[in-house]
Amino acid sequence: MRHSIATVSLSGRLEHKLAAAAGAGFDGIELFDNDLVASTLSPREVAARCADLGLAVELFQPVRDVEGVAPDGFGAVRRRFAAKLDVMEQLGTSVVLCCSNASPDALDDPDLSAEQLAALGDLAAERGVTIAYEALAWGRHVSRFAQSWDVVRRADHPSVTVAVDTFHLLARGDGPEVLAGVPGDRIGFLQVADAPLLRTDLLEWSRHFRCFPGQGGLDVTGVVAATVAAGYDGPLSLEVFSDVVREAPPEVTARDARRSLIFLESELGESAAPLPDRVDAAFVEVPAGHEDLLTALGFVEVGRHRSKPVTRWRNGAAEVVVNRAPTDTALGVVVPSVPAVAARARALLWPEVDRSRGAGEAQLPGITSPSGLHVFVSAPDGADDWIGDFAPTGTPPAGDWGGLDHLGVAVPEDRLNEEIGFLRTVLGMVPAAVEEFIEPRGRLRSRAVRPSAGDLRVVLNVEHAAGADRSGVTQVAFACADVRAAATALRERGVPLLEVPGNYYVDLAARFDLTDAEVDDLRRHGLFYDRSGGGELVHLYTEVLPTGFYVELLQREGGYDGYGSAGTHVRLAAQQH
Amino acid sequence: MRHSIATVSLSGRLEHKLAAAAGAGFDGIELFDNDLVASTLSPREVAARCADLGLAVELFQPVRDVEGVAPDGFGAVRRRFAAKLDVMEQLGTSVVLCCSNASPDALDDPDLSAEQLAALGDLAAERGVTIAYEALAWGRHVSRFAQSWDVVRRADHPSVTVAVDTFHLLARGDGPEVLAGVPGDRIGFLQVADAPLLRTDLLEWSRHFRCFPGQGGLDVTGVVAATVAAGYDGPLSLEVFSDVVREAPPEVTARDARRSLIFLESELGESAAPLPDRVDAAFVEVPAGHEDLLTALGFVEVGRHRSKPVTRWRNGAAEVVVNRAPTDTALGVVVPSVPAVAARARALLWPEVDRSRGAGEAQLPGITSPSGLHVFVSAPDGADDWIGDFAPTGTPPAGDWGGLDHLGVAVPEDRLNEEIGFLRTVLGMVPAAVEEFIEPRGRLRSRAVRPSAGDLRVVLNVEHAAGADRSGVTQVAFACADVRAAATALRERGVPLLEVPGNYYVDLAARFDLTDAEVDDLRRHGLFYDRSGGGELVHLYTEVLPTGFYVELLQREGGYDGYGSAGTHVRLAAQQH
Repeated sequence: MRHSIATVSLSGRLEHKLAAAAGAGFDGIELFDNDLVASTLSPREVAARCADLGLAVELFQPVRDVEGVAPDGFGAVRRRFAAKLDVMEQLGTSVVLCCSNASPDALDDPDLSAEQLAALGDLAAERGVTIAYEALAWGRHVSRFAQSWDVVRRADHPSVTVAVDTFHLLARGDGPEVLAGVPGDRIGFLQVADAPLLRTDLLEWSRHFRCFPGQGGLDVTGVVAATVAAGYDGPLSLEVFSDVVREAPPEVTARDARRSLIFLESELGESAAPLPDRVDAAFVEVPAGHEDLLTALGFVEVGRHRSKPVTRWRNGAAEVVVNRAPTDTALGVVVPSVPAVAARARALLWPEVDRSRGAGEAQLPGITSPSGLHVFVSAPDGADDWIGDFAPTGTPPAGDWGGLDHLGVAVPEDRLNEEIGFLRTVLGMVPAAVEEFIEPRGRLRSRAVRPSAGDLRVVLNVEHAAGADRSGVTQVAFACADVRAAATALRERGVPLLEVPGNYYVDLAARFDLTDAEVDDLRRHGLFYDRSGGGELVHLYTEVLPTGFYVELLQREGGYDGYGSAGTHVRLAAQQH
Repeated sequence: MRHSIATVSLSGRLEHKLAAAAGAGFDGIELFDNDLVASTLSPREVAARCADLGLAVELFQPVRDVEGVAPDGFGAVRRRFAAKLDVMEQLGTSVVLCCSNASPDALDDPDLSAEQLAALGDLAAERGVTIAYEALAWGRHVSRFAQSWDVVRRADHPSVTVAVDTFHLLARGDGPEVLAGVPGDRIGFLQVADAPLLRTDLLEWSRHFRCFPGQGGLDVTGVVAATVAAGYDGPLSLEVFSDVVREAPPEVTARDARRSLIFLESELGESAAPLPDRVDAAFVEVPAGHEDLLTALGFVEVGRHRSKPVTRWRNGAAEVVVNRAPTDTALGVVVPSVPAVAARARALLWPEVDRSRGAGEAQLPGITSPSGLHVFVSAPDGADDWIGDFAPTGTPPAGDWGGLDHLGVAVPEDRLNEEIGFLRTVLGMVPAAVEEFIEPRGRLRSRAVRPSAGDLRVVLNVEHAAGADRSGVTQVAFACADVRAAATALRERGVPLLEVPGNYYVDLAARFDLTDAEVDDLRRHGLFYDRSGGGELVHLYTEVLPTGFYVELLQREGGYDGYGSAGTHVRLAAQQH
């Protein structure tokens, strides 16, 4: 049989994957769509590279969520599918993997699924393409091989076949017997993968991932409050175990554990140091040496600290502080009462950064997070307002940037729980769900945290990648009213903007009903785009700067509330070029 | 509220855990039974240490599988529970956590569970102890808080209360509302833990743990054979992704991937180099410098290699080869045909170790596994029998040891799939399920592999522990007909045997119906004990020797087929003393 391997099975950039597959003697590949979208090679260049290496492009995969779609959404599916057929033609491949609909909105109607697959089969047949339809083990309604074969039989279309994937088939407890009676020419593709027999259940969750109250997402407070309300007067006892605490020094774990109980009691109303009502972003502090970059970004120096070697820079509402003393990139936040937060931090056993203070200056205590992020705490006005410490120097800034949109911080895996615990217990910031992204050398897990009120956003990133050991601020993202104008201005001032691969815009056109002019406009400006609910995000990234971080500019419209996750894998790949 | 933490939540040895809890300001602890069993401190010494540190022993936990037990098994439960009450008395603690039965044999009968808890409540009341009964989220029949409260109400016993554990309660989707109406004095203990909201399902299994055919446990061959039998004539295409391949160099992954397809085709009967019919252990090769150790272990030099600086040592049927050339510890195996295995290894792209060969000597090709283990391949007799290469020197050995029982090999996490693939695809060895053990600085995951016929056993160990970076042979285990006599003899000859904590024998007496004399005999000889099905295992370990490995001696009786897993956590803790 011909030997083939999916590009998603190999690490690295696409050209590296292709060379490795050819080097090991494979006859062909499955091209993973995300690998293409993130590549700087055009589909025709990929086809030529494969031909040079003696590799057939056996399959293009996957096109998702194409059947079981509400009829009013099927037009978008046809458009998306047709766009991928164009790409396949340039690749010179004739089999496309469509996997069963995994969306919560999928409809449970095998006849509808069959009808929609047959309609796509008509489009495919015009291009000489065969669809291989695969039952994902976690498909919403079609999750077992027999169900996918049933849909293919109902479709009754020469270009619609069934795919066999050993993982999906076996993971659901089926075996070879479900293939009985399926004619070989109706099997469009065979994907093979093995897996260890693992438990993926509550027991594993409990054994490997428990964490201290305030580090996770369970309503621990509610249950404890109900237990106390019932009249329980015994101890409040932590029973936490995880891969993290098994390897951490017990002193570190014990201190975090105590903090979590102090937090829990404060949630029960037993603390004299409540959480701040709101938390807003104030400024980013960077070390000296960033002045030229700030100027190129459009920042202007507007003040000098009265007693320290520190200057204040602005671009519109964006505030950056440059510290000539040795320092890491740090974050300034604004809370209603500085003494209240300082008292809370002390109650939670967090050490204060030592800050000397001139006469009449703001208190501005600094607290260091477990991952090493310095957080300076200021008040919106009065004696504890950080702005009062600066004597005006420059002209009022002409820039049109908004404030800090979010800060991206790299956190070592074994400190993530502590970092979340810090932001949650001191500032009341709540973590969102974990998001995971594939990058060329590994993967990235992200958790965004935000307070219940106020505009501060922090995205914590754990890198699981060969050689990854970054920590600290990796991304500084500002809001922006006109990101197209900003892109033009930044280019003129020589700021290196991240180059976006052309395939990304082809994929954008497939995913959204943008006009050609709109897509061209995004491409010309080198912008990323996302849409969610009624909102839109248009954004850009600089390259990773010599200072170790990169700058993002975000134009949020219509209440868009996310971070452009759909393009993150493209950004990660582009940053490694 | 009093602040308490379970000792299982902290890493390290028990005395280190206690010091860390006290240092962080905790008022008390939950004592985890396994931590006590593996400790060299007696229960009274633990009580005194806690008193010195100002820590109350708030809870002893857990006693498992005590209710929903078939009536003829309840006598053993009573005995086990009473033994733990003795320990609790010495600890000075008055609350014991009993968790709901998670055994597949548990009976679904709340009245029986209640009756059995009440019977244990009578025993507890005599000692002033209260039972806190907890619904484990994965309990066989009692898995939700409301069910545990129902059982406690039915028990209607002053010493039987319900436990609240925030993880178990919330993990099942319940919330504070299930506590409505439960009187506080009926809640015996409150354990708190949080957790991130994670998917623990097929999708996660698929994303993070897929592997190449032959590295896992799924019947990939069966599905592929059925697909081919149906008439499918397309490519055989690998779609594997995992945390391992995302970080591995693509060349390494691609080579392993190709090997897996060659293996798969051989399983389909398309290969000219079939798997060996059986694989037996032949010898262990160690570098020079081990001669004094071998003598102390009872080995005698019986031969010299005809052309190399290598000697052969025996103790009964146990064979060790000492190589004066620089070498790592290696394994010799016996297969029916050396050329057949060599051809198979070549077909699978495994490099041969270069072996010069004297006239008339056995071929003895060596293959290096991905983790670096050298495997020499010999035949049972004839020209390829390794024994023929040695000229007899010493007297026939007087020892009574059996052959090699198993070899323990430490494998880096990211090489485990490759290592299993090697043993499976070259020698036909099949992996058993993953077992996991907690050790003071982390955890150990083990997979035992065995051929379908033949006596070779290899245990692959992945260490997840702070500072762990071992690879290679860590354990050499020999069979033995009389391990008590061997223990005495080894001690007399000055071999350092691993010291077993006294608490281990107290726990043995609680778990098995051994007489006092039998337990004393085990204790006096420093032996480990296990029982499974109708078989028994009595075994001992040396300390970790300067050579980096330790020796185990196993006396298997009545068909005992395992590795003494129930005592592994004690062995791991003792090895770190």
